[in-house]
Formats: sequence, C-alpha cells, structure tokens
Amino acid sequence: MSGDFDRAIAVFTLASGAAAVNYEVNIFFTFWGLNSIKVDTGRSFLGKGFLARIFNYLLGGRKTLPLSRLNFGGLSPVLMNGMMQGKNVATLEDLFAASKALGVNFYACEMAMHVLGLTRSDFIPEVKDVLGVASFLEMSDGGQTLFI
Amino acid sequence: MSGDFDRAIAVFTLASGAAAVNYEVNIFFTFWGLNSIKVDTGRSFLGKGFLARIFNYLLGGRKTLPLSRLNFGGLSPVLMNGMMQGKNVATLEDLFAASKALGVNFYACEMAMHVLGLTRSDFIPEVKDVLGVASFLEMSDGGQTLFI
Amino acid sequence: MSGDFDRAIAVFTLASGAAAVNYEVNIFFTFWGLNSIKVDTGRSFLGKGFLARIFNYLLGGRKTLPLSRLNFGGLSPVLMNGMMQGKNVATLEDLFAASKALGVNFYACEMAMHVLGLTRSDFIPEVKDVLGVASFLEMSDGGQTLFI
Repeated sequence: MSGDFDRAIAVFTLASGAAAVNYEVNIFFTFWGLNSIKVDTGRSFLGKGFLARIFNYLLGGRKTLPLSRLNFGGLSPVLMNGMMQGKNVATLEDLFAASKALGVNFYACEMAMHVLGLTRSDFIPEVKDVLGVASFLEMSDGGQTLFI
Repeated sequence: MSGDFDRAIAVFTLASGAAAVNYEVNIFFTFWGLNSIKVDTGRSFLGKGFLARIFNYLLGGRKTLPLSRLNFGGLSPVLMNGMMQGKNVATLEDLFAASKALGVNFYACEMAMHVLGLTRSDFIPEVKDVLGVASFLEMSDGGQTLFI
Repeated sequence: MSGDFDRAIAVFTLASGAAAVNYEVNIFFTFWGLNSIKVDTGRSFLGKGFLARIFNYLLGGRKTLPLSRLNFGGLSPVLMNGMMQGKNVATLEDLFAASKALGVNFYACEMAMHVLGLTRSDFIPEVKDVLGVASFLEMSDGGQTLFI
C-alpha cells in the first residue's frame, strides 16, 4: 500500500529474497503502492478526471517515491540511492528488476485503480492481473501475508 | 493502529471482504486506530485529563481522519470521498457499515484507552470487548494477523 | 522497520506480551527500526561517511523517537511518556526492558546497517546476530510475521 521509497525497498527486498529461496510470492499493489508499477517512473498527468490527474502527477512513479522520514523534499531518496550504490548494496531499481526476474507475481488493486482513474495500460506489462481484495485474500490463503 | 483515512479504508475493505467469504474477522483497535470507533465522528474533547482531551480533540473521529500522503490540511480525504462516490466505489462509511453488518468483531485496546483517557462509552456499542494485547494474540492464534 | 515512538511501543508490547505467554519471539530491526537498539539512546554522529553521520544524528536513538502523528517537534513523545507514567502504564523503556528480560531475540538487518554505515558495536549487546532478510524469513517459517 505504501508509496514510500524505504517501504518499497522493503517490499522488493522481501519479495526477491523469498522468491530466491523458492517461495511463491504475490504482491498486491493498492493506493500509493500503485506508483511503483506505473510505466512512467516520473511525474505525469495520468488518469481520467481532473482530480485524479492532479493526484497522479503529485504522486509520481517509482523514481519519485519519497522517504517516509527525513525526506527533505525528495533529496533524501536520491542521497540514499547514492549511498546504496557507493556501498554496492542493491538499489530500488535492482531489487525491482530482481523481483521481476525471479518470477514474483504483481497484482494491481481494481478498486484503487478505479478511484485514481488508472487503467491497465498505465502499468508495466509484468502486472499479471487486476484483482479485487477478496480474490487476493483467497489466493493468499495458507500463506503469510504482510501489510507494508 | 493507524488513524489514516487510507489505511482505515484498507482495514475495512479487508475486513468486510474476508467476512463476506465467511472468514471470522477480529479487529484490534489501538492508538490512533481508536479514532475510527468513537461514537463522536468529528472533533470533540473526549477523555480524562487536560492532555488527553487536547490529544483527542486534535485526533478527532472517523470523519476527520487525515490522508497519509498529500493530506492538504484535511481537504484530500473530502476530495477522495467525492471521487469514490462519483465512481460508485464504497466509501469509508460504506465499508465500515458493511463490516458491522457482516459480523466483524471489534475490540478496543485497554492500554491505549487508558493512556488516552477514553472509556467504553466513548466508543460505538458494536465494540464487543476491551482487551489487552495478550488476549488478542491468543484469540488470533491459528489465523493470519495483519498490522495496519 | 518504523522508528516511530508509537510503533516502537506496539513492537515491544506485542513482543513482551507474546514472550510472556511462551511464544518464541524474533524481532528483525531494519532501517529506522535500528534506532531502537542503538547503544546511544540520544542523538550522536554514528556511522562511517559524511551522509551516514548526518542521517544517524538526525535519526537519533530510542529516547528521541518521534510520534507518527501530532509529533510537535518531539514534544509529544515526552508528553505521552508522562501520561503513561502518570497512569502506571508501561513506558517504552519498561516494555523494552521487559522484552529483553523475557528473552525476545533481537536481530539487526545487515543491509540497512551497511547503508547507514553502522557496525555491530553501535548496538546494544543483547542483539543476537546481524542477518540478511532471507535468513530471517527462513527463521520465521511456520510462525506469524508482522511488518511494523
């Protein structure tokens, strides 16, 4: 759900880590989480409806995610990416690419897409399906679910 | 735990969705989450003690929950409710009513109530019990627990 | 993950509550969560590298955690601690001490430590090990995992 840079790092670290040791991993992106799977990784006026377009512009994509603490107007995610690269730690883009490569399943929340005026084509092709939360709950039955 | 508008939407969407497919659902409201089950859905000076009353006034109830991102001084939850109604998506009030109607069990956290100076009568009658976290953990044993 | 005062309260309440009824409890501290287990509970320039030192100073330790809502520049956690003591509710320090005494296992996230330039000696001796997320996932297999 969260569209924070640091929480997105947590999502894709957990997902790629679990997929690497052969767990089946399903991620359900809802609300601000949808920002992470937009085709457009920067800011753009996506969506239908005036308010939806303003919201989507302000929210941006995977490369404009804010830090949940000490964001400093977007400077901190840039600094942190630099710190991660400088120390040879996987960056958000690396973790995102690894999750895709390791076969993590991406699902987009139908309701949140509807509210934000987004359609399937606003998202990367790796998104496997558009689902309601009830379908996702069924799919997750018997596994572990984390809310991030 | 969270008293954000968007996270409350997530709580009641998951709860009503799971209850609709016959899961037993228990919600443990603690800290800011208690705002969602106050009888008074607006701002009021609830609680015992000067600080508690100030905190409760600032926190408000279910109709004054802020958005976790882009809140714009409380304007965004209003806009978002409008967007949801305009698109025939269930609003927070709808999801809350559905959760109650589908028999989701509401529990209030004893410790947080004590700290915030709140009593049983500050909450809606549908709250089934006031519990400590240990009792809730026991109740949840064998099920899935999400922290929201 | 969170370094909020209120979420830290939730972590150590759940941990000590579960440990008290004989669950095995493992906490994986990552990102801002690492602030809770620093030896230095106040603000200090820990870490290697200029940026890491600035970040760590701003983040501080267990006694400078901010409230996730209505923080008022750090005043609220102080007020809330006072409210908790006044009502004989366990404070963050009490819950932290109880978690240690009840044998809750503390683990620090290797990757986050690396990014923030922190080493094992920056943390309290009760930290059992420094782990990657994959090792922690394996350790948690068969149990419940909450993301806080």
